[in-house]
Amino acid sequence: MKTKAVFYHAGCPVCVDAEQNVAAALDASRFDVEIVHLGVSGNRIGDAAAAGVKSVPALVIGESVYHINHGADLSALG
Amino acid sequence: MKTKAVFYHAGCPVCVDAEQNVAAALDASRFDVEIVHLGVSGNRIGDAAAAGVKSVPALVIGESVYHINHGADLSALG
Repeated sequence: MKTKAVFYHAGCPVCVDAEQNVAAALDASRFDVEIVHLGVSGNRIGDAAAAGVKSVPALVIGESVYHINHGADLSALG
Repeated sequence: MKTKAVFYHAGCPVCVDAEQNVAAALDASRFDVEIVHLGVSGNRIGDAAAAGVKSVPALVIGESVYHINHGADLSALG
């Protein structure tokens, strides 16, 4: 069974770069990667906050949060 | 040809976590991932700085730097 990974972003240049170079680099045979644009899918901001996301871009793998560089604080997206 | 990726860390808990969950999640069929412990291999600190690494853990993919969470500033390791 694949591990769930969610990449949260907000369309910012830092986010897009991380999506193309980090999220896309994950091993698709082991990870089921979902890309969530919080600017478009604002209803997912609660999920991101609950997972521990403080800023985007962020990658949630299983129950662990990895903030990758810094594009925008989650609080600025709400 | 595989893309070169270097994961720089310093053995801190945040670093070890990111190594096990992010660096290890990369697709080994597309990326040649090198793990560098700057506490052990202090002679690589210059390489990390030259690549743009400001703190560890950090993942350098090609010429792009991704700081993942924050364990220690590079300046604290020299």
